[in-house]
Amino acid sequence: MSVEREYVHGYSGREAERLVDQANALTELLHHDTRYPAGARVLEAGCGVGAQTVTLAAQSPGADILSIDISSASLAAARERVRAAGLTNVTFQQADLYAEPFPPASFDHAFVCFVLEHLDRPGAALAALKRMLRPGGTITVIEGDHGSAYFHPRSAAAQRAIDCLITLQARAGGDSLIGRSLYPRLVEAGFEDVRVSPRMVYVDQSRPALVEGFTRRTFNAMVEGVGERAVAEGLIDAESWARGIRDLHRTAEPDGTFCYTFFKAVARAGSRLP
Amino acid sequence: MSVEREYVHGYSGREAERLVDQANALTELLHHDTRYPAGARVLEAGCGVGAQTVTLAAQSPGADILSIDISSASLAAARERVRAAGLTNVTFQQADLYAEPFPPASFDHAFVCFVLEHLDRPGAALAALKRMLRPGGTITVIEGDHGSAYFHPRSAAAQRAIDCLITLQARAGGDSLIGRSLYPRLVEAGFEDVRVSPRMVYVDQSRPALVEGFTRRTFNAMVEGVGERAVAEGLIDAESWARGIRDLHRTAEPDGTFCYTFFKAVARAGSRLP
Repeated sequence: MSVEREYVHGYSGREAERLVDQANALTELLHHDTRYPAGARVLEAGCGVGAQTVTLAAQSPGADILSIDISSASLAAARERVRAAGLTNVTFQQADLYAEPFPPASFDHAFVCFVLEHLDRPGAALAALKRMLRPGGTITVIEGDHGSAYFHPRSAAAQRAIDCLITLQARAGGDSLIGRSLYPRLVEAGFEDVRVSPRMVYVDQSRPALVEGFTRRTFNAMVEGVGERAVAEGLIDAESWARGIRDLHRTAEPDGTFCYTFFKAVARAGSRLP
Repeated sequence: MSVEREYVHGYSGREAERLVDQANALTELLHHDTRYPAGARVLEAGCGVGAQTVTLAAQSPGADILSIDISSASLAAARERVRAAGLTNVTFQQADLYAEPFPPASFDHAFVCFVLEHLDRPGAALAALKRMLRPGGTITVIEGDHGSAYFHPRSAAAQRAIDCLITLQARAGGDSLIGRSLYPRLVEAGFEDVRVSPRMVYVDQSRPALVEGFTRRTFNAMVEGVGERAVAEGLIDAESWARGIRDLHRTAEPDGTFCYTFFKAVARAGSRLP
């Protein structure tokens, strides 16, 4: 029944764990300024395994959150995660964003986190979200940008490994460099008052929680996760891949640094009727 | 008398104007948290044409600032700029940082902005600065990182033009990617309590002052400034260069975005005698 589109990071248990680690390390940076009032109808589009859903629901305990995803397996994991967290303000529903599964003006707010980067038609998704929002409603979009990653010591091999991930995501129809383009994409979709704020993660040895939680367990783990596929698809040979991963982990050593930037956009659906 | 080391951006009047534009647009972002108390002895190492000196002096009106540079021509421009700004707390002196021109512990604070990136031995410069600071004194270092530049629409040609600047700066003995490595460099030089904070400049159409003041007049102007040399040294052909510059300016159009990150580090010279 469930049509699970290709997801570059796969649907394994280890990937689910990685997403949860990532959510923990970055919650404050990415989500501290997203709070919806009591009674607000919030659509979370593409909730995945619920890594962001628990934060979203906990920060807006009075809001009614409807979280949708295309994958029934992910929804089951998300439902369990939200239940385990003792949160009761989330409803889950399997749905395809492209199919615009709710009537116009069904929601006050939409929340989309790490989703557009995996879609082949992010513009169509944004347009669908805009129609499902009431006039004056807001959309919040958070995406990464793998082209924002740079590090010390520099390494062409490490950059090549990252490029493999970017290429695989592109082959799956996504765009892992989408963060930098949120502003024009939201404008293009007809949103108003678009405000983008970059959230840069800077890691050095004085920030050990980020060395572990971001460089090692989030970014490097994400790149490592596509290794077999990158080699199998002929993007890189096994030895070069191993060198790239080794050099990526080298940046988590005491004299290393790592930089990555997420982009958060908030925009308004406009005051005119949709 | 003056031994003017090779400076990748040149010493022209237009370059001086560019540096002043840059200082105006970025003053708040880079300098708002640098203020020295009355009576503090501050060494500004590598003041150049004084683009940062006027901000430094205005923000710490009670501090005694000694600004040094290797170039007598730059010092003359800096002196005139400071005089025109009505500032009286700056003394200028031609000196070579590598020669450690002042006795140990001569200063309470050192300030170094856009200097290390041009030096062939930044570690030796930091070590010299550390010795000239009193125990417990602080150093503030601000540097860019040209590898932190990315933009929308993406363009291989624009990236190639930027790479030419990076290569020319490397050929001149500098490192225009130095920002990301300030932390380990300061630790290596023996500084303590090293704290690095990135200062990211994000530009989209909703920030017209940055489109003009940063993307066009600072970053793109800086890249454009090395065009003749890049072509003359055979790094790129004239047509490819023109395409790269055109694509860089394309990022300043209404649907474009531009990202760049400066790194600011503050560290302490330690409590032990030097």
